[in-house]
Amino acid sequence: MVSGAADLPHAFDVVPVRWAGTAVDLLDQRRLPAAEVWLRLDTVAAVVDAIRDLAVRGAPAIGITAAFGVALAAVVSDARGAGDVVAAVRDAGDALAAARPTAVNLGWAVERVVAAAGAASDGGREAVVDAAVAAAVAIAESERSACRRLGELGAGLVADGANVLTHCNAGALATGGYGTALGVVRAAVEAGKHVHVWVDETRPVLQGARLTAWELGRAGIPNTLVVDSAAASLMARGLVDVCVVGADRIAANGDVANKIGTYSVALAAAAHSIPFVVAAPVSTVDLSCPDGAHIEIEERADAEVTNVGAVAVAPAGQIAANPAFDVTLAALVTAVVTEAGVARAPYESSLSELFT
Amino acid sequence: MVSGAADLPHAFDVVPVRWAGTAVDLLDQRRLPAAEVWLRLDTVAAVVDAIRDLAVRGAPAIGITAAFGVALAAVVSDARGAGDVVAAVRDAGDALAAARPTAVNLGWAVERVVAAAGAASDGGREAVVDAAVAAAVAIAESERSACRRLGELGAGLVADGANVLTHCNAGALATGGYGTALGVVRAAVEAGKHVHVWVDETRPVLQGARLTAWELGRAGIPNTLVVDSAAASLMARGLVDVCVVGADRIAANGDVANKIGTYSVALAAAAHSIPFVVAAPVSTVDLSCPDGAHIEIEERADAEVTNVGAVAVAPAGQIAANPAFDVTLAALVTAVVTEAGVARAPYESSLSELFT
Repeated sequence: MVSGAADLPHAFDVVPVRWAGTAVDLLDQRRLPAAEVWLRLDTVAAVVDAIRDLAVRGAPAIGITAAFGVALAAVVSDARGAGDVVAAVRDAGDALAAARPTAVNLGWAVERVVAAAGAASDGGREAVVDAAVAAAVAIAESERSACRRLGELGAGLVADGANVLTHCNAGALATGGYGTALGVVRAAVEAGKHVHVWVDETRPVLQGARLTAWELGRAGIPNTLVVDSAAASLMARGLVDVCVVGADRIAANGDVANKIGTYSVALAAAAHSIPFVVAAPVSTVDLSCPDGAHIEIEERADAEVTNVGAVAVAPAGQIAANPAFDVTLAALVTAVVTEAGVARAPYESSLSELFT
Repeated sequence: MVSGAADLPHAFDVVPVRWAGTAVDLLDQRRLPAAEVWLRLDTVAAVVDAIRDLAVRGAPAIGITAAFGVALAAVVSDARGAGDVVAAVRDAGDALAAARPTAVNLGWAVERVVAAAGAASDGGREAVVDAAVAAAVAIAESERSACRRLGELGAGLVADGANVLTHCNAGALATGGYGTALGVVRAAVEAGKHVHVWVDETRPVLQGARLTAWELGRAGIPNTLVVDSAAASLMARGLVDVCVVGADRIAANGDVANKIGTYSVALAAAAHSIPFVVAAPVSTVDLSCPDGAHIEIEERADAEVTNVGAVAVAPAGQIAANPAFDVTLAALVTAVVTEAGVARAPYESSLSELFT
């Protein structure tokens, strides 16, 4: 049995999903920040439910959770024969892959663990179980080590004493540990730098207020919450040294799709000559997408805007628009920090070099 | 007795405080947008309470309400002699002026009605009552006619078919009728133009979602609510033709202090070559203030950011910053629309000419 030690959080880290030997431990993100509730999932069905019901969010975190779910199927299987364990693993993989249809990481992670289990079937029951667990743990560690490496590279862009402004949650909770934008902050702090973070609350879903503020507080990193529209004013007052955000997709020309409001931060940063840094794994760079104009802007439900949680804040029947993402033009991006290196303009060449 | 007819709302207007002959009718802004509740205030004490308890907000609206309160004291007075009525009016004025200590319009409006009543005392009881009522109604009409004139001048900057973006509530509810930024929109619509308004929700207090959306909806003017951070993205997508906002103070050089987030809108507008128009009465122009650096930024309670209404959205004990206003540099302002004319750069000369 693979030890869970590698999954223990670093002093500055939050690991929202952990392998517990005969169960998957999951931090219920639906309850944050009001309550820090850990779910102990000891059946595959419970893992499927947790993914489907959004107890975990963020594609990498979902992928890790599903991988652990497949491993769990092997561990809890009553089957005596290796072939029967592999069959149980396959059934679990099918159920987990179907929990959320659109998350790419989910299918990829499930497939990888199922394949590892199948490849070990000649070694007997225990070999299959160990292979499944090892593959799942390896996925989790790989995701986290990418964030750690990315963080180290990005920390060089954060000076001692810096005021960092971030938007949304590109943290451990979204990535399965350490985080991308928040990984850069963590790495700077681990390197001994004093850092203070301005946390955009990130309407409408308030990932900044609910998740980023919680993560930073738990890591003991000084942070101050502000409404999104205060960011430009903070910059004008000399209170922001660098902006660091995550990304949902980075086009081949360096245009960046990220949470709505990111573009507004980038415009204000440019107006005040403040570096605007995007932190994301290489897997977020989509060389098949030529530029931001080719990125579709997802429109989400009006109710996210007209309500805050269950509380209506607008007139009954109010029409709202709710674009979930925006596109920041490459010209506004100072650097793209990945685990494979830091890309700068011209992005057409620097981004493709990350893949070589 | 002065008729209340002049106070009836225009088809596109909202008049949140109205003289009702023997009472003051007040739209309770604390209940909007969930409920449209009118308070009938038939004692001076009730008017004092309404001002103190924020049933009415916005300095001009508060001033009108207090003026009506003084007139009400004369109308409801049991005194037979003119001198006794004037004494009752003075007592009411003292109580009303003390309801909120910082609103400049409040003391000014009270003083004007008290003075009018005193000046009429030689004419007998009825003359005192008529003078108080006439002075109060004149204040209300003067405020509204300034907004109407301002709106007409500003409407020339709004093309037929325009998408207007506004921030906060610079509407009838804040001004006592018609509004400044929303006055420009109303006047454009009255001139037969088709206008659609993007309403920034305006965190943290959500004046956009709660008040501007309600006002526009009531006026039948098409509008769509968005989170503040979506404004730049709307501009990038070609969906905004002009930004129109109000102002809390305009410095002699044209720098504009207004609700937090206004600067962010102005930066985005400049980046997309979209006109950024400030609509405000001449009384908002402060020639004694040389520039925005001399305008103090009020810092309000953290709880406005960490909570939405009674709902906590951030971790317990979360530190927040809550600057209530920001400063938009004059270089970003396309025009300042007032009832005395439209000022454009260079503002040092154009703003002072408004006073001649």
